[in-house]
Amino acid sequence: MRYRIEKGKYLPFHNAVDTCIGTGRMGLALQKEYFEQLKLVQENIGFQYIRGHGLFCDDMAIYQEYTTGDGEIAAEYNFTYLDMVMDNYKELGLRPFLELGFMPYKLASGTQTVFYWKGNVTPPQKYSGWTNMVQATLHHLRKRYGVDEVLTWPIEIWNEPNLDVFWENADKEKYFKLFQETFMAVKAVDSRFKVGGPAICGIDDVSWLKDFLFFCREKKIALDFASRHHYCINLPKEEGHYGYCGLIDPEEGLLQLWTSRKIIDSFSEYKNMEFHLTEFNTSYSPKTPIHDTNLNAAYIAYLLSRLGEGYASYSYWTFGDIFEESGVPFTPFHGGFGLVANGCIPKPTFWTFVFFKHLKGKCVFKSDHAVIMQQDENIYNGVLWNPVWGNKEDVFSTVVECPVNINTEYCLMTKCVDERYCNPLKVWHDIGEPANLTREQKELLHNAAKPLIQTSLLHTKAELLEVEMEVAKNGVIYFELIPVDRKSDRGYSYERIFEI
Amino acid sequence: MRYRIEKGKYLPFHNAVDTCIGTGRMGLALQKEYFEQLKLVQENIGFQYIRGHGLFCDDMAIYQEYTTGDGEIAAEYNFTYLDMVMDNYKELGLRPFLELGFMPYKLASGTQTVFYWKGNVTPPQKYSGWTNMVQATLHHLRKRYGVDEVLTWPIEIWNEPNLDVFWENADKEKYFKLFQETFMAVKAVDSRFKVGGPAICGIDDVSWLKDFLFFCREKKIALDFASRHHYCINLPKEEGHYGYCGLIDPEEGLLQLWTSRKIIDSFSEYKNMEFHLTEFNTSYSPKTPIHDTNLNAAYIAYLLSRLGEGYASYSYWTFGDIFEESGVPFTPFHGGFGLVANGCIPKPTFWTFVFFKHLKGKCVFKSDHAVIMQQDENIYNGVLWNPVWGNKEDVFSTVVECPVNINTEYCLMTKCVDERYCNPLKVWHDIGEPANLTREQKELLHNAAKPLIQTSLLHTKAELLEVEMEVAKNGVIYFELIPVDRKSDRGYSYERIFEI
Amino acid sequence: MRYRIEKGKYLPFHNAVDTCIGTGRMGLALQKEYFEQLKLVQENIGFQYIRGHGLFCDDMAIYQEYTTGDGEIAAEYNFTYLDMVMDNYKELGLRPFLELGFMPYKLASGTQTVFYWKGNVTPPQKYSGWTNMVQATLHHLRKRYGVDEVLTWPIEIWNEPNLDVFWENADKEKYFKLFQETFMAVKAVDSRFKVGGPAICGIDDVSWLKDFLFFCREKKIALDFASRHHYCINLPKEEGHYGYCGLIDPEEGLLQLWTSRKIIDSFSEYKNMEFHLTEFNTSYSPKTPIHDTNLNAAYIAYLLSRLGEGYASYSYWTFGDIFEESGVPFTPFHGGFGLVANGCIPKPTFWTFVFFKHLKGKCVFKSDHAVIMQQDENIYNGVLWNPVWGNKEDVFSTVVECPVNINTEYCLMTKCVDERYCNPLKVWHDIGEPANLTREQKELLHNAAKPLIQTSLLHTKAELLEVEMEVAKNGVIYFELIPVDRKSDRGYSYERIFEI
Amino acid sequence: MRYRIEKGKYLPFHNAVDTCIGTGRMGLALQKEYFEQLKLVQENIGFQYIRGHGLFCDDMAIYQEYTTGDGEIAAEYNFTYLDMVMDNYKELGLRPFLELGFMPYKLASGTQTVFYWKGNVTPPQKYSGWTNMVQATLHHLRKRYGVDEVLTWPIEIWNEPNLDVFWENADKEKYFKLFQETFMAVKAVDSRFKVGGPAICGIDDVSWLKDFLFFCREKKIALDFASRHHYCINLPKEEGHYGYCGLIDPEEGLLQLWTSRKIIDSFSEYKNMEFHLTEFNTSYSPKTPIHDTNLNAAYIAYLLSRLGEGYASYSYWTFGDIFEESGVPFTPFHGGFGLVANGCIPKPTFWTFVFFKHLKGKCVFKSDHAVIMQQDENIYNGVLWNPVWGNKEDVFSTVVECPVNINTEYCLMTKCVDERYCNPLKVWHDIGEPANLTREQKELLHNAAKPLIQTSLLHTKAELLEVEMEVAKNGVIYFELIPVDRKSDRGYSYERIFEI
Repeated sequence: MRYRIEKGKYLPFHNAVDTCIGTGRMGLALQKEYFEQLKLVQENIGFQYIRGHGLFCDDMAIYQEYTTGDGEIAAEYNFTYLDMVMDNYKELGLRPFLELGFMPYKLASGTQTVFYWKGNVTPPQKYSGWTNMVQATLHHLRKRYGVDEVLTWPIEIWNEPNLDVFWENADKEKYFKLFQETFMAVKAVDSRFKVGGPAICGIDDVSWLKDFLFFCREKKIALDFASRHHYCINLPKEEGHYGYCGLIDPEEGLLQLWTSRKIIDSFSEYKNMEFHLTEFNTSYSPKTPIHDTNLNAAYIAYLLSRLGEGYASYSYWTFGDIFEESGVPFTPFHGGFGLVANGCIPKPTFWTFVFFKHLKGKCVFKSDHAVIMQQDENIYNGVLWNPVWGNKEDVFSTVVECPVNINTEYCLMTKCVDERYCNPLKVWHDIGEPANLTREQKELLHNAAKPLIQTSLLHTKAELLEVEMEVAKNGVIYFELIPVDRKSDRGYSYERIFEI
Repeated sequence: MRYRIEKGKYLPFHNAVDTCIGTGRMGLALQKEYFEQLKLVQENIGFQYIRGHGLFCDDMAIYQEYTTGDGEIAAEYNFTYLDMVMDNYKELGLRPFLELGFMPYKLASGTQTVFYWKGNVTPPQKYSGWTNMVQATLHHLRKRYGVDEVLTWPIEIWNEPNLDVFWENADKEKYFKLFQETFMAVKAVDSRFKVGGPAICGIDDVSWLKDFLFFCREKKIALDFASRHHYCINLPKEEGHYGYCGLIDPEEGLLQLWTSRKIIDSFSEYKNMEFHLTEFNTSYSPKTPIHDTNLNAAYIAYLLSRLGEGYASYSYWTFGDIFEESGVPFTPFHGGFGLVANGCIPKPTFWTFVFFKHLKGKCVFKSDHAVIMQQDENIYNGVLWNPVWGNKEDVFSTVVECPVNINTEYCLMTKCVDERYCNPLKVWHDIGEPANLTREQKELLHNAAKPLIQTSLLHTKAELLEVEMEVAKNGVIYFELIPVDRKSDRGYSYERIFEI
Repeated sequence: MRYRIEKGKYLPFHNAVDTCIGTGRMGLALQKEYFEQLKLVQENIGFQYIRGHGLFCDDMAIYQEYTTGDGEIAAEYNFTYLDMVMDNYKELGLRPFLELGFMPYKLASGTQTVFYWKGNVTPPQKYSGWTNMVQATLHHLRKRYGVDEVLTWPIEIWNEPNLDVFWENADKEKYFKLFQETFMAVKAVDSRFKVGGPAICGIDDVSWLKDFLFFCREKKIALDFASRHHYCINLPKEEGHYGYCGLIDPEEGLLQLWTSRKIIDSFSEYKNMEFHLTEFNTSYSPKTPIHDTNLNAAYIAYLLSRLGEGYASYSYWTFGDIFEESGVPFTPFHGGFGLVANGCIPKPTFWTFVFFKHLKGKCVFKSDHAVIMQQDENIYNGVLWNPVWGNKEDVFSTVVECPVNINTEYCLMTKCVDERYCNPLKVWHDIGEPANLTREQKELLHNAAKPLIQTSLLHTKAELLEVEMEVAKNGVIYFELIPVDRKSDRGYSYERIFEI
Repeated sequence: MRYRIEKGKYLPFHNAVDTCIGTGRMGLALQKEYFEQLKLVQENIGFQYIRGHGLFCDDMAIYQEYTTGDGEIAAEYNFTYLDMVMDNYKELGLRPFLELGFMPYKLASGTQTVFYWKGNVTPPQKYSGWTNMVQATLHHLRKRYGVDEVLTWPIEIWNEPNLDVFWENADKEKYFKLFQETFMAVKAVDSRFKVGGPAICGIDDVSWLKDFLFFCREKKIALDFASRHHYCINLPKEEGHYGYCGLIDPEEGLLQLWTSRKIIDSFSEYKNMEFHLTEFNTSYSPKTPIHDTNLNAAYIAYLLSRLGEGYASYSYWTFGDIFEESGVPFTPFHGGFGLVANGCIPKPTFWTFVFFKHLKGKCVFKSDHAVIMQQDENIYNGVLWNPVWGNKEDVFSTVVECPVNINTEYCLMTKCVDERYCNPLKVWHDIGEPANLTREQKELLHNAAKPLIQTSLLHTKAELLEVEMEVAKNGVIYFELIPVDRKSDRGYSYERIFEI
């Protein structure tokens, strides 16, 4: 492949790679291993927001009841664990993207639950119980973290109500009521809060989104943002604990996303409104081994190059593998959603995020396999990727034609993540797929989960430089091309070292 | 190359790779960067002893004088810095291999000094001043660190007295006197101390060693060990701050060392006595860039496979590049002796030591390019190396024939350090040889200074397995060959992930 | 009070202060704050073993079931979380004192649960399900941590079966069956495991213990150790979340404990058998504010001076306040069991343990208010305490008469914990009893939770020295009395500094 | 004493306590213990700038010479160590207050040196050598740390040229020449640099300052700031390594300082110019034990309350005891300048700085023994001190009358540093003045070097509250008086805990 950068021509590219990241339920955020995985992610990528389920689930212990002297049942709120979680996030430079849900057992109208960890997915028995709790929580957070700070935390109401596993009967009318009641309750605390929904996934999404916006229009709800989710696989085939699945063409998925965008823009009052992809990944199941592969890393690179076109944020689901929706994982690599496997081992997709985080300046090239940026005059960096699946072709050799300073020494630095050089899943497989890693095995996997870094010198003789890079199957490459400001010390000659 | 391991045949191989390491002068051990480099070395290699110059140099401030009420000059000793240094070593799991020297200015008979940091290399004006100081120091160390502990610290008297830069006129008789006086003084504190010398380098070494042993015999000195040094280059050609040099054939150098060993063994009372190589490296100059190369790493691998044959320890000179003998270095890579460059960047030779540290069990193969060990039944690890210089041939492809369990899945794990994959010197050159690294440059160099780790699965069908490995030019490879105890989790199939 | 130490007279004192410590349910050991509190405890006290409930509760996820191809229900075990917990303990230098319980939901015969966190307390539906799980767990631990290591982990069967909240109907016969089946299953894995029970508390304890031992005798069960619990309060009066209670006379409680000891010793085959107090504290409720007081610290000092008389270990219940038996605490100080309050703030009782940990050498004095030890010749340390409750008298001034070296300078060092100097509960009260500590408040409380350290010089003129110390109400004092080896530096005069 | 705060009346108080701190020579900033002491200081106090000697001394290795091919001597500069030092400062949140000096040996016109570490104090042989080096250094710093950043670093020329030990013959004319040449050289690099002097101490200071300013006026030097030093003792009496001295009345010293201020203001072009006290302390000798006392802490509190009146900054000399001007200290407490003793033990004066750092808001009371500030409505904090020396009276009991909210619960929090509660010097003396601390002794001293923190509740019944505090001899007390926002948890009663 040959990519030509044209001097002075800049392309649109909205890079929101670090805006938001997903997480397992909030109660897990108390764990030590969770914190360590998130720390690794923050040190290397540095997201701004974090979003996950379970704020009001019973393990967070927020909603409590007691009997008063008069024999009445009264509510009281316990923010001990909530503060521990928020303090941890703050320590790591993160703000919560608040998702309000699920229903505390004592407030619920029904008994239906979702997941191994049993989140109650039924409407409140009495709305006042729910809205009082929401308001008490927001009042508490404002007091502890400051009004101005908490106003920067977006508030999303519930999760995927269009699925009957997440919302009893996927009952649209009941969700709209929940939305309206909660929206009003939040705005009553402070009208400046940003509140949105409907957090739907791609099932019956067109009608849900339209009906939701019609409802908001009708009720004169001044929606602050909309949200939806995105996954890209065929139905997995299940075997024991695991599922095996094929990927769809990424453009096919993106089409769905642009349809949603257009629906919103078709409502005059919501046109150009902020739209958040509050979850995305390849597979929607936490036990599909594809998540751990180099293919996943390369496929996600494709998505990262595109999602900013219509979405204010796109939150990869999830940062780590401390996650219990389908139960506690049996092995460190188990097809979990995480960028990081248990044992704090970065998966290939972790590096895709690291690489996109480094993209700065103006976009000068963009294709299905590459994004290239220019900083200052004739300094470039970029990401190249090569996902290969189904009967998709493997494209190996790349030549980038860069406008450069003539008669200059340039340093090309590449960081390569592919099946040969940064493939911890394969190493784990090769050592026998151990369920419980020894210290030595953890260290081996850490060390085998790093990009290969290489540099080379290019001496330009013309104003256009042909930079060759090979992107192996399922590889992702980050590169920088920088003119060298060489100041050799007195008497130092690199070449002479090897002449002897 | 084809290496055949014969079942049940074991070869002699004394691996003292981690016994001792060299260091710049003791006063530098107070520095923060020194400590961090040494910490990195200890975490990855874990030496037992550390030896360097300058215990009694004036920057350590041990020897002090004052005028008494009677107007007499009296001695007093300051152990503030000594304790800081020893506490740091202890914290890092190290014991000192004590070298007594050089001469405090106020005790010296002359003014000749060595190095940028001006170590005085003249005999004491009065021997009692010197021996009192030595004894006071030993008494102090025994009190602070415990008698039993301090008895494990060997004591070597002076450094390279056969060179006139290290000992005024290289005066043999005067050194012998220094040795005898000091030996007696140390033994008077505790006769169980292990005391040795003459710490000579390879100049006129045969006559020095013989004369030294004759002297000891004559004086009935019950020498505890002998010591010498070893370097392997031709005279460097100087240019600006740097020197460029060629390597000698390693066997040529080893010959000198075996000659020394034989001289000792020819004295009946010293036969089989402990012999320590208290310094060795390729070049003896701290500004020869060869130290920073992959060639150095491969050449040192050769030496590490051989030195244990006649020597109880062999102390690489030095662990790090905080070192001032030729002045403060101008750049992070400057041809210093260290395993670690300034900025805490491991050089290729660092990994040679890490790899040899992992050699355990019984030796089953040894050649000029390989050492292979067996642990338990049919589990192997080994180191391969391929130094190429002068008109030495580059030998690339290696096949090791290993007796194995039949019909078994084996995992071959390799860690590769060569000019392609772990060459921080080249990266530093390619980014322009910056004298003062930014934080980003340090991080880049750290990440580019790691071995490439790869695994592969081998399914044995016979009792002899042919394991192929390529050792590139100036490469060093560590490998492990281990039968796999696979316990795949219910439903997990690595192959099936990629079938979709 | 006047305490006379008689030269050469030594008293019995078995100090097992650091043998074992209690913990909330094992699932909580995954938490970050739990780890940090335990780290603080280990750095300052350093226990050897840790014992708590919930090894087999569903949040640990060990027991799992699935349907086979034949449609059968099969068991499988998940040790992911167990290993995380054990790895954490190991990192902190702790070994588990394993308590086998409670019942996984899918193995249980009934639905009765205990605590906010719902531990199932019914016998297994089928014993093979339970014993297979126990054996699988032990096999796994042996493989991961080594056979020799795991054999040092005592195994206790269930918790307080004599209470119907912990064991359905407190059914004795069913417990005996559980004990026998489990004992046999464990010994079948390795007959060298140490297995014991019945882990009863002080309700109907005499008959339970006797019947248990008769049962073991009859069944020829070679019991390795016995265990029971101990608490020392009157029934708490409840108000809102809290309970307020009075303390019993400690001797009254000890009487119960000696009775148990005598019962055991009355069985010839169990005479002098190891007896562990696997739980003790003042109050048995995790919401009685007395736990947080200086009174608690002084009362526990009394117990620590006595419990070693008949018990191999006595495990304070618990190390920290990450504990959910009565729900998640609303405030950092809430009368939890812990030595450490949430926010990692040491309570006064923490220091009682630190002080007893320092008691070494031979006991030369012991009373209801003091233990004094002698190390070497005429070096002493000791702990003094003064709990004041009910109409108990406050005894303030203490004189210890110590045999000393004549004409010697002695240094008396005291560490004082009392209501004036180390009372974080009062500070927390005084700043308004905040439910959610700010960073500044945490720091204030940390700094206010340290013993007052003071030294003084005593110049002995006779062979008996009167050492005066004041032990304020509810105070605990640690002291050392050590001859001074003064080596003033040349010219240094402490007195002269203040003469000017 | 009775201090009345008058409502609405605010007093001038310029608190520059954290602007600048002194340090031993720059070469020592490479040391590990130096870094750890400075880290402790920065974590607790947090200074903005650091100033010390020795930037150009030979151990920093900046100035180097070599012979060119033509046989000429050429200069080259080595910034390896300078960057290490500056990086360390940056990591700790510090900026350098650059002092240009002393003279590199190869640039010097003479051989006179100052201190154990031999700083050359003679003018340059050729001015171009000196100014080239200064400019090269500034160019380097601008490149590495950024132009805007480096412009915030003040530049002071030389140190105490009015003393002949610091400047050959204390030659005024030669200093003026040095000043002018250097000033011009610095401004030639960037005219925005802030450059000042003359950094004199209190010997012949009136004439030096006047002459300096006349010289600047004459030469039309647009001086950016002036600087001087301040010490407060009588001539020490020497004994062995130590000096014993009396303190002068602080007002006597301040008079000198106000005189300097007035001199500056008498020059119309320098009126109100920034004036920095670039060194101050009680004693000017690093071996006067008074530095380590509580008296020093209380005396310095007095100065800290006053120095802001005429000075933009006042830099305590020095932060720590890694300091070699009089040689390497023999013992951890030795009368060094530091806020921190070797072994990282805070001295009492450390806490005086911590306490003043906490003074915020508006000053509502100021006397010779107190500064009190108000934040918001009726929230106060303050520092009280009571230095007692010579025949100065000991004033013990203090009553502060504070305007408060009526019928409110107030919390009084005090942190007390006095001879009883925070006196590590006494503890060190009592344990025998050990020269080399064991780990246990270090820990004891750390723990004994903390302020006593206590709280109490005050219930206001009127609008004026009498707050009683006792300030013992040589004590310094920090207090906060804050209305309590009590939110007791349901059922929690602090009083009821003790009723039982």
